[in-house]
Amino acid sequence: MHRVRVRVVEDALDANTTIAQANRADFDRAGVKVVNLMSAPGAGKTALLERVVVALDGVRVGVLEDDVQGSYDADRLASLHVPVTQINTDPGFGGECHLDANMVRSAIPALPLEEIDLLIVENVGNLVCPAEFHIGEDARVMVCSVTEGEDKPLKYPLMFRTCELVVVNKIDLLPHLDISVERLVANVQAVHPG
Amino acid sequence: MHRVRVRVVEDALDANTTIAQANRADFDRAGVKVVNLMSAPGAGKTALLERVVVALDGVRVGVLEDDVQGSYDADRLASLHVPVTQINTDPGFGGECHLDANMVRSAIPALPLEEIDLLIVENVGNLVCPAEFHIGEDARVMVCSVTEGEDKPLKYPLMFRTCELVVVNKIDLLPHLDISVERLVANVQAVHPG
Repeated sequence: MHRVRVRVVEDALDANTTIAQANRADFDRAGVKVVNLMSAPGAGKTALLERVVVALDGVRVGVLEDDVQGSYDADRLASLHVPVTQINTDPGFGGECHLDANMVRSAIPALPLEEIDLLIVENVGNLVCPAEFHIGEDARVMVCSVTEGEDKPLKYPLMFRTCELVVVNKIDLLPHLDISVERLVANVQAVHPG
Repeated sequence: MHRVRVRVVEDALDANTTIAQANRADFDRAGVKVVNLMSAPGAGKTALLERVVVALDGVRVGVLEDDVQGSYDADRLASLHVPVTQINTDPGFGGECHLDANMVRSAIPALPLEEIDLLIVENVGNLVCPAEFHIGEDARVMVCSVTEGEDKPLKYPLMFRTCELVVVNKIDLLPHLDISVERLVANVQAVHPG
């Protein structure tokens, strides 16, 4: 039983890669760079986006928001006058825990690709499955809050290994935590040297 | 393509329920109560366990630890002289993001059921899939850290709806956060009245 399920997932990953390549070709044709933004729930992806969207003066940014349910983050970002498209992954039994290439593909017609230079895709808050599914992105960025502890790279290595950039967040809380950023960074280096 | 995947998952959930009932029958026969402990990554499940295991004087506690990779939490708990069994869900392509009934079933022969009254199963840190898979537990408990924000019940409703108890953690950080426990509790009530 368990082996059958794993095979299904591997087939799904093969199909996902093919669709991700088609997405990437569409984004390249439109001259749009795509960032896949991932983290655990509540690490601060949306708060980071709110700052980045304002700071990126001269770059036309669009956002694709993905949540199991609701449009709370999309509403926050839309108030900044950035084009935001919402995907909900809830198919009726509790919600998909990640974005896959096919979900992004079905959102492409709704994206204003001619009006943006950079598309930031905010994935579902999860450190496991989003790392397995490429969506056609140019780069992967993850947000890691210091409140989650120093051990997350060791426990969720694939996520840290597949990202080009790890943003360490909520460092203003460090004086109140028994957490060392040096040990956190050393653990990132352990699973993703360089 | 997408519809086929959903059907596969629903079949898997049916099979999971059957195996969960078999697990529950085994636990009942042994007179062991089982708690399924869930949360986002780094919310403090293991830290809570370290306290609970010591505080539950007179109750013989065992722990089943589940992680994608490694045995960091199991090592922390074993030092408290509690029987700990480790499951790793990593099947080679990034790790399962949750425990299912079959994984727990395969661990049962390794559990010292005759020597414990209460088995606490620490699930993978994830707010989506663990909520969908019953493992044969008597109760579900989740840990929600205030550092994750007030909106988590609205964004991951199934998790909050299927738990008998939500433990609000890291409240010592409240003076340094723009977070209201009242609004968090109101959001829990909105998705799980009572």
